[in-house]
Parts: sequence; C-alpha cells; structure tokens
Amino acid sequence: MHIAPRKPAEAGRITLIGAGPGDPELMTLKALRLLASADDVLHDDLVPPEILALAPKTARLIPVGKRGHRPSCRQEDINALMAALAREGRHVVRLKSGDPALFGRAGEEIAAAADAGVPVEIVPGITAGFALAAALGVSLTHRASAHSVRLVTGHGREGALPQDLDWRGLADPATTLLVYMAGRTAGHLAERLIGCGLPPDTPVVVAEAVSRAGQVLRGLTLAALAGEGSVASEHPLMLGIGEVFRDCPALAASHPSCARSQAPIAA
Amino acid sequence: MHIAPRKPAEAGRITLIGAGPGDPELMTLKALRLLASADDVLHDDLVPPEILALAPKTARLIPVGKRGHRPSCRQEDINALMAALAREGRHVVRLKSGDPALFGRAGEEIAAAADAGVPVEIVPGITAGFALAAALGVSLTHRASAHSVRLVTGHGREGALPQDLDWRGLADPATTLLVYMAGRTAGHLAERLIGCGLPPDTPVVVAEAVSRAGQVLRGLTLAALAGEGSVASEHPLMLGIGEVFRDCPALAASHPSCARSQAPIAA
Repeated sequence: MHIAPRKPAEAGRITLIGAGPGDPELMTLKALRLLASADDVLHDDLVPPEILALAPKTARLIPVGKRGHRPSCRQEDINALMAALAREGRHVVRLKSGDPALFGRAGEEIAAAADAGVPVEIVPGITAGFALAAALGVSLTHRASAHSVRLVTGHGREGALPQDLDWRGLADPATTLLVYMAGRTAGHLAERLIGCGLPPDTPVVVAEAVSRAGQVLRGLTLAALAGEGSVASEHPLMLGIGEVFRDCPALAASHPSCARSQAPIAA
Repeated sequence: MHIAPRKPAEAGRITLIGAGPGDPELMTLKALRLLASADDVLHDDLVPPEILALAPKTARLIPVGKRGHRPSCRQEDINALMAALAREGRHVVRLKSGDPALFGRAGEEIAAAADAGVPVEIVPGITAGFALAAALGVSLTHRASAHSVRLVTGHGREGALPQDLDWRGLADPATTLLVYMAGRTAGHLAERLIGCGLPPDTPVVVAEAVSRAGQVLRGLTLAALAGEGSVASEHPLMLGIGEVFRDCPALAASHPSCARSQAPIAA
C-alpha cells in the first residue's frame, strides 16, 4: 500500500476521520493516509493510544473528550479551535471514535467549518455496532428474524434516555436495535421496550470495549437487563437487542461472558 | 503498515470480509490483510475490479453474484462450495460489498460453515449509508433533526417491498432512513411513507454508486420520489430519507445532481 508522503499544508483544511471501534486494524486505508498528514489531531477520549500513534510524530495531539461524567471541552471551543488552526494553513484532523456521522457532534463541527470558510472532508469509519456483529459472528439482518437495523443512543442531552424517542417504533421485534452509550440508561430502556410490547425474553448482548483489549460480550434477556438497571463500565458500552442475538455461539462458548482477544497490528 | 506474508493454509477456514462501498481506500487494514492471504475469493458482482486486484495473483476469483434481474448462484451452492474448499485446507474468502452483517446472506453462510465444522471469521466493512453521509458532508444524527438511524432494504424476497415492514415505525420524522437496494421500489416506498404520515417535503437523496467512479447524488423530496416511481440504474442504488439531508451543500453545489470524483489509491 502506498501512503502519501506528508506535504506542507498549502491551504488549511479540516478532515473528520472515523477511527473505527478501537482496533487499529479496523481503520480504513483512507483514514490512515489522512491521519498521516495531520498537523493537529483533536481526538475523543475513546480513540486508543495505538491509533494516536499513527499520527505524524510532529503532529500536535489535542484531547477534546466529552465523556458524560468528566469535565468537558465545550463544543463551541472545539469548533473555534479547529477553524482557527485551519485558518493558519494547518491540516486539522478531528479524530472520532467509530463513524463521524453517528452520534457525535459532527453536524455542528461541519457547520462551523463552513461558516469559517474552511473546507471539510469526512472519512467514514466502522461503527461499533458492525464490529459487534463481526465479533459475535452474526448477521444483523438474518432473513429469519430481522429486516431492519436501528441505531439509537441511550444518552440524551441530559444524560437520561432521549425524551423524544419513538418507543412504539423501537419496540419492533423484527428490527435489530443497536444502542450506543447505553450504560446508565440500560435498565430503563429495557423496561420501556417491554412496556411497548417487545417480548421480555428478547435476547440482549451487553458489549464493552468492542474490538479492543478487554472486550467483554455478555448475553442475557431484556427482562434480565431491566432487573439489572444501569450497567457500570469504564469502557464504552453498547447494547444489541433482537432475535439475531439468540443462541449466539460466541456467547454460548463461555456463558455468561466471553472475553475475546484482539489481534495485534504492526503499523 | 505490516502486511502478513502469505502462509500455506494449515487448516481450512472461511473469512467473510466486508469490502466496503466500492472505493478500495475505504477497505479496512484487516480486510486488506486477510484478502491478501486468500486461496479462493468468492465475490459479489458489486465488488469492483480494483478490490479484486488486491487478492493474491494465485487466488481463484469465483463470482457468485445474485443481482435481482440476472441469473443467480443459488445460496445453497455458495454455502456448499465454501465448505468444500475450506475442508481441502484452503483459506476461503467470501468478499461482500459493504458490511457482511447487513442485508447479505451472511447468516446462512455462517450457519452452513458451522454445520460443516469450518471456522469462520467476520471482518466488518464500511456500509454504503455511512459512505453516503461522508460524501454529502452530513451527520446522520444531527442534534437538531434526528436521534436515530434506521437501515432497511427496499428489496424483499420477491423483489417487491418487504411485506412485513413496520410502516408506522418507519415513518418517524426524527429518524434518518437509509434504504438499500431501493431502485425498483423507490416510488412505492415513498408513497407508503407519505401515507403513514411522513411529510411529503421530507428531503431525499438518491445515491448511485456511492464512493465509486460514476457516483451520482441527487436531491429531491419524498413527494417527487413518489411521482418518479422506480429509479433505474446500472449501479447500486440507495436512498437517504430525512431532515438531515435538507439544504445539503454537496447537493446544492450542482443541483439537481452532483457527480463527485473518486480519489485514486495506489495499492
């Protein structure tokens, strides 16, 4: 593979790059190429050190994480910093966990760059839900059990479940639900789904650190999740909910939890 | 980047690899590594020659496409061929457009491999919906307009719209819909969504050949799509439906359609 040599930035620009779910080998070739030409890398907390190490040695690494229960960078400050650096002629990479177009603040970052007259490019990334399906060895739309996939967040503006969720639509037994940032609201979400008609024995996978060292995949039912309430984890946590997760061999192998190792990558 | 040298297969295995939306640079490093150790590559019609060229020169390339209006390989035959080759000790790569866990027959292929006692690994890929968001420069979940993303197929078992779709749930104005394989049923789908309450002026993007040479992105409304009926294309076609696609600069730039060039990759 050819990796373009780093060139001095002629005109500043911003690239929003999806870093993928955590395993550096799940980055795209394009993400790797553009990260390798960064002058500044503004990154989420969830981007692991192995991926940050793929930026040029000379690039400035600027953490701008906004994890729920920690001190935050204001989104307005991130937007302003990116525009200011790009205006100096720098290649600013905004490195986001997963895919930049899903459950981040990419919309606001893109709008702010446009307002500042700075060109923006977006590089998609593998989102954790698809990495979860790969780790489990399941299809998210197995013909026998699901015709659609829905990606929702368990974390609304105030940290609780989003108030405007269409609960009736969510509780469709033929749709596979992938719930991001679901740790604190997991039990409440399960209760609501059961209340809207999703069967209590619907299979659930609680997935921590998908594709990372420390990955744990745990199978249970919606009713059991409702009983657990919130799920505490130091890692990013997501839920898979739906019939496609029933009798999943990767979970059965070491029930009730199944830690999987991560293939190393030499960069 | 390190690419593992090809080793003789000691025990046969099957790897389901997501080739991504078409642009070879949107493959993951892991997909590239595992494709480079294939003995046999069974591939969809939609996987472009530039990606097939990344397989070893010695690998057998076996097309197993199942495009709707062309002669088909039977799924049972594909499953049997993969198992037979793996049992001979070969590394069989099943190379699928997009992500293997979405709207393919991966579920049946995984089950058949398990029945045959052959190990299977899955490598996720960028699905076209996320590549579309990147090409358009939009967030699929912009805070102001969408809290969820739903991926559905416009092509059911008999080529018509899936009969069992939850139409009320689909017609949620705060959910971004990504509809795969939607060419023939596009108009019917738009009619049904309007009938279930989605506003007729909801923005729609008709996307052909996302991330490929020949990419065309065209913006219109749900009402206009209903008037068009089916959308003919020689390329893979998908729809994006939702408020996040309103006033999209990439569409406005050359309204009503916007062809974008594709960055070359040197492999």
